[in-house]
Amino acid sequence: MKSTASSLAINRRALLATLAALPALSGTLFTASAQAQTTTPGGELPSWNEGPAKQAILNFVRVTTDRASPTFVPPEERVATFDQDGTLWVEHPMYSQVMYCLDRVPAVVAKKPELKNVEPFKTVLSGNREAMAKFTMKDLEAILVATLTGMPVDEFNAEVKKWFETAKHPRWNRPYTELAYQPMLEVLRYLRDNAYKTYIVTGGGQDFVRVYAEKVYGIPPEQVVGTAGGTKYGYAKDGKPFLTKEPKLLLNDNNAGKAEGIHLMIGRRPNAAFGNSTGDRQMLEWTGAGAGARLEMLVLHDDAAREYAYGPAAGLPDSKVGAFTPALYDEAKKNGWTVISMKNDWKRIFAFDLQ
Amino acid sequence: MKSTASSLAINRRALLATLAALPALSGTLFTASAQAQTTTPGGELPSWNEGPAKQAILNFVRVTTDRASPTFVPPEERVATFDQDGTLWVEHPMYSQVMYCLDRVPAVVAKKPELKNVEPFKTVLSGNREAMAKFTMKDLEAILVATLTGMPVDEFNAEVKKWFETAKHPRWNRPYTELAYQPMLEVLRYLRDNAYKTYIVTGGGQDFVRVYAEKVYGIPPEQVVGTAGGTKYGYAKDGKPFLTKEPKLLLNDNNAGKAEGIHLMIGRRPNAAFGNSTGDRQMLEWTGAGAGARLEMLVLHDDAAREYAYGPAAGLPDSKVGAFTPALYDEAKKNGWTVISMKNDWKRIFAFDLQ
Repeated sequence: MKSTASSLAINRRALLATLAALPALSGTLFTASAQAQTTTPGGELPSWNEGPAKQAILNFVRVTTDRASPTFVPPEERVATFDQDGTLWVEHPMYSQVMYCLDRVPAVVAKKPELKNVEPFKTVLSGNREAMAKFTMKDLEAILVATLTGMPVDEFNAEVKKWFETAKHPRWNRPYTELAYQPMLEVLRYLRDNAYKTYIVTGGGQDFVRVYAEKVYGIPPEQVVGTAGGTKYGYAKDGKPFLTKEPKLLLNDNNAGKAEGIHLMIGRRPNAAFGNSTGDRQMLEWTGAGAGARLEMLVLHDDAAREYAYGPAAGLPDSKVGAFTPALYDEAKKNGWTVISMKNDWKRIFAFDLQ
Repeated sequence: MKSTASSLAINRRALLATLAALPALSGTLFTASAQAQTTTPGGELPSWNEGPAKQAILNFVRVTTDRASPTFVPPEERVATFDQDGTLWVEHPMYSQVMYCLDRVPAVVAKKPELKNVEPFKTVLSGNREAMAKFTMKDLEAILVATLTGMPVDEFNAEVKKWFETAKHPRWNRPYTELAYQPMLEVLRYLRDNAYKTYIVTGGGQDFVRVYAEKVYGIPPEQVVGTAGGTKYGYAKDGKPFLTKEPKLLLNDNNAGKAEGIHLMIGRRPNAAFGNSTGDRQMLEWTGAGAGARLEMLVLHDDAAREYAYGPAAGLPDSKVGAFTPALYDEAKKNGWTVISMKNDWKRIFAFDLQ
């Protein structure tokens, strides 16, 4: 039995490298609205510059929703899938879910004081980033299992919700939920306005993402496909049933797991898919292998000034979380996938940016 | 690793008992329309007699959709889940999926002639019901694994679709897809007309049920939750990706698995749930444990003339497929669940019945 921990698609080297660079655990106490605005005054996709990426989206919607088009898709069959980290919101310097797990360690230890002097919890509590950077995969798994499993589903949901109300991204000092990409929020809305069902298909935890997906992206829980662990049905003392999150991996929703997860959870082949890394390759291939008009897009992080630059844009090989490798870039060109340049295609990155 | 076979919720004793009573493999060649009609002339739920069951449904919809009601539920949160076998359509004398598996054996052997003289395939090919009734659980698993896994998803879907076009139920000599209960089709439509998302939550195979659920019940593939096996992503010689059905159980969607499956696939607690057997108990409990107005219903098979009588209605203990046991009957009374008497509450059973 594999543990849930291995499900988080962590590029361990990258994770450890960034651990040391992070500020202290983000136990901030500020409350902020996490509601992202997706109003689209003055036409469709207002935060997009004119260019091939915007044109590809507009064209795809036109040829799949015009009844006169030979590639028309009936409304009930319209499905668009989106990776989350690096595609819908910021994934650097670390997945927000990993930040959550580290931040949860003190609470876990408070409930189980016997962990206080046990590694790797002792090191997390010390705040020693140098030491954390030396964690083994087993250490990381222990942290993920301790903070993501073993509790009732309702309790987990409440904790995640509470965390997002106060935790802030170290660079922008804003709630993570404000770091969704405004141009992508507009794509989500534009597709939904055209009867597309929009899904998140993420390597992140399904339960974790479901907590905020409706608020941040307008995507309901039943349209979030993610890495999923098992749950166990039981009864409280008063006879009321509850579900406990188990350290048992059901779906590792990365790489081939994304195509498999789409089959498991949706049962239809997407018409459009959006990603940004090698973990999204099979989802885009699976989408592209269907008949009719298809849209496959990859977000290229080439904007160090407004966000980050990594992958081919930074001349980097496969050395970063969410890698957009040269090989993926080549496959995109070969298959006719559209690369979105954050720098050139997006007028602004976040809702809070001046347009 | 558990095999997919154990996922089929087979009450082995009952299964074997009915094997001997079945007619020859249903390789009939007739084609028939499987489209069930759910028109509702003359008011809601026209195939229901006045009584507490019909009233419970009408009342539930009223108090959850009237904005002035203290138990109003926002449209986007409305979820209703339905067991399939014995709740939405006939499950006797055997689940249609098991019939499918037996019928598929000749085709499997044609592709793998080495199985011809190997048990249990040899016995299935012989048509000897007496011998089949002596199958061990291992024999049955071998048949299910051979007929439900190992092929590409698209090929499986095509085979199931083809089977339903010709296979007929031994008692009515009609396609299985015509054996959906007309009163339940009306409930599905009535709930959807009131913004409820309707889901099937079945112990049957998720891929199997998805093939016909839209046509028979108006339920799209993404709203079918069922017993699910893993798939494996691979590439054909031409480079095109495909998914192969694997003999690996991901979700055994029965008993506690129904509540767990609802969490995995929907991520919301249902407001209403419909079942007919002990396998649905936890789904109804889970539904009932939420706040606000709740509707839990159990179909009682007490109509030997028009369908079947089994469970408490026939004075039977837990000895039949899809058992509605006395203990379940007691729990229903204790919890305020509504029992639907097929005999008393339904004007007609099938769309083809004269009303």
